[in-house]
Amino acid sequence: MVERGFHLVTNEVVDALPELGEISVGLVHLLIQHTSASLALNEDASADVRRDFETWFDRAVPEGAPYWTHTLEGDDDMPAHVKAALLGPSLTLPVRDGRLALGTWQGIYLCEHRDRGGSRSLVATAWGESASTG
Amino acid sequence: MVERGFHLVTNEVVDALPELGEISVGLVHLLIQHTSASLALNEDASADVRRDFETWFDRAVPEGAPYWTHTLEGDDDMPAHVKAALLGPSLTLPVRDGRLALGTWQGIYLCEHRDRGGSRSLVATAWGESASTG
Amino acid sequence: MVERGFHLVTNEVVDALPELGEISVGLVHLLIQHTSASLALNEDASADVRRDFETWFDRAVPEGAPYWTHTLEGDDDMPAHVKAALLGPSLTLPVRDGRLALGTWQGIYLCEHRDRGGSRSLVATAWGESASTG
Repeated sequence: MVERGFHLVTNEVVDALPELGEISVGLVHLLIQHTSASLALNEDASADVRRDFETWFDRAVPEGAPYWTHTLEGDDDMPAHVKAALLGPSLTLPVRDGRLALGTWQGIYLCEHRDRGGSRSLVATAWGESASTG
Repeated sequence: MVERGFHLVTNEVVDALPELGEISVGLVHLLIQHTSASLALNEDASADVRRDFETWFDRAVPEGAPYWTHTLEGDDDMPAHVKAALLGPSLTLPVRDGRLALGTWQGIYLCEHRDRGGSRSLVATAWGESASTG
Repeated sequence: MVERGFHLVTNEVVDALPELGEISVGLVHLLIQHTSASLALNEDASADVRRDFETWFDRAVPEGAPYWTHTLEGDDDMPAHVKAALLGPSLTLPVRDGRLALGTWQGIYLCEHRDRGGSRSLVATAWGESASTG
């Protein structure tokens, strides 16, 4: 469980997927099984980038706006759905020689859009050629 | 053909893809072959969530704004392109034991951003291990 | 290296991937390995659509806004990160009979969100059944 905001989780994801080490050329797909949290791929070096993401999304999709009608689950709920749809629930990432083939500055963000989102589940699926058969 | 707005189409998609039943571990990819409609994955229980999506997107990408130059195809055309790009034209979803492995509240949205978009085509591609060989 | 804006690159991508010609039913995945440029799929016929994309994104994610804290790399940097996350770093596209199975008006956009982004790298991964074995 993480607090609201944009969190770098590249290492957690890679550590949970030792199977990637067996793939010489392939892909891995991640789905977050929730509608008020999302996944993104962006700058992994600066915490202030992730804070600015939170600031921009909070302004672009404001809580308490008069046009929201789905308000029963809290002021943060409907904005969280919109933010989640804008960023998307999944990532598909290339794997080369047993490792994610990301750019130098790319890291995986888990974006928690609710104040108290609880624990979040990801489903991972990897496929490709293994080093021995590839 | 659906009216403008966000439509839950999970059942239609699954019913059109009996092949998913043969996949024990895999994925399915959906592409909407249009530039003014999109696919999203979000809350599938409340119609007011989908109405609020429409409200937010209409405010964020307004019709008739003075900065649009591509206006020949109607006031709803250029905003529809931007909305479609924000949400994206495709979904990749995990399949487990013959079924979509979505979260409890996740459903597939067909997002129609035009007033009269006409019929929309999706291309589906599934892959993975079958129950018999997996 | 391209200038800031939305650029149609379908032909460049296809020409760089002769392997697609061998796939009868499959997919191709593209990742742009950067955090201030992105990929999108949208209208490929009108240059004014792409200019309007640039206009909308510049207004929606403004440079020089007082709420940005990550400003050391220039006024265009943090907005570029947000734009890149909104559009996304990757596309997964179906392949049929050796060709991209896109809609009539769909083309691949390389979206350069920085004033001087430098050269940009894409990683492509294709998979599926070949014509001879499919």
